[in-house]
Amino acid sequence: MERKVLVEVSARHAHLSPADLETLFGKGHQLTVKKMLSQPGQFACEEKVTVVGPKKEMAGISILGPVRKDTQIELSLTDARAIGITAPIRESGDIKGSASCTIIGPVGQIVVSEGLIIAKRHVHLTPATAEAWGLKDKQVVTVKVGTPERGLIFDDVVIRVRADFADAMHIDTDEGNAAALSGVVYGFIL
Amino acid sequence: MERKVLVEVSARHAHLSPADLETLFGKGHQLTVKKMLSQPGQFACEEKVTVVGPKKEMAGISILGPVRKDTQIELSLTDARAIGITAPIRESGDIKGSASCTIIGPVGQIVVSEGLIIAKRHVHLTPATAEAWGLKDKQVVTVKVGTPERGLIFDDVVIRVRADFADAMHIDTDEGNAAALSGVVYGFIL
Repeated sequence: MERKVLVEVSARHAHLSPADLETLFGKGHQLTVKKMLSQPGQFACEEKVTVVGPKKEMAGISILGPVRKDTQIELSLTDARAIGITAPIRESGDIKGSASCTIIGPVGQIVVSEGLIIAKRHVHLTPATAEAWGLKDKQVVTVKVGTPERGLIFDDVVIRVRADFADAMHIDTDEGNAAALSGVVYGFIL
Repeated sequence: MERKVLVEVSARHAHLSPADLETLFGKGHQLTVKKMLSQPGQFACEEKVTVVGPKKEMAGISILGPVRKDTQIELSLTDARAIGITAPIRESGDIKGSASCTIIGPVGQIVVSEGLIIAKRHVHLTPATAEAWGLKDKQVVTVKVGTPERGLIFDDVVIRVRADFADAMHIDTDEGNAAALSGVVYGFIL
């Protein structure tokens, strides 16, 4: 069976805890939905923050909502190097011992002692698709993305299965640009 | 036979024609060697330029010497998008109809009508290695780079064979970061 999945590129973004959202944007502030994302309930917000590293700061970083238990910043390796931060490649949520940075919002700023990661490439699947494709949560697979000029086969792709997911592969901007992704592109799980 | 080749990451850079070098740096200016590169006779220079696109400018872009017949600017897709330029993926030297930009030097500036490209991934080989490995100039191959966490298999890799080359695969910073390359890394031609 053809295991064909939509490939989406995640640009740099931040998830905020309720407390950090209030510190950065003011007491009682609620996130403003700019655009719903492919994963059910997830959205890009109108709110932006600046992430500061030892070398440089990077403004205009989007927040993805809703709020989460822990604040987490996801940059590409290109971004992290530009602002002078060495960060580990991690799955979302796995922030223990990850990199530190400062986040500045319109009302206040916070120092995040851990929470800055380079996102590990992954595929979101519904339980139904995972079963149909013979895949399990946390399984590591290889995905071929046959873009013209810059075709890539991604090793080390983590399968994530959850009832509230939609089927989609997520890579970051370095990975998307390395494959020269543009428009609607599909990957094939090998 | 194992076809193992050193993988090197090329950061954004410019090659200048003799006339453009003089316009940017002054009449009679000679490039200053900062560091010899792996390809025989090629060197990174002390001189830097600023490349300007419609959206933003990017300062501190290294010049690679010696001078060449035509001025050519090589950016990553991340770089090109940041400054607002859409450029094609091309082999070095194949600049016909490629993107335009402005280059600013300490003495003058030029408008390059074509010459800005995204470098196509390639492998430099000596004729001896190419013969031993059963490969020909312009052949397109697949190369596996087994970095931890972000292993990649690169399709669309062009083989280039010339007597004055040294064996090395060249990818850009997006491709290097997509594979989380760090330190000395080898690829395997499949």
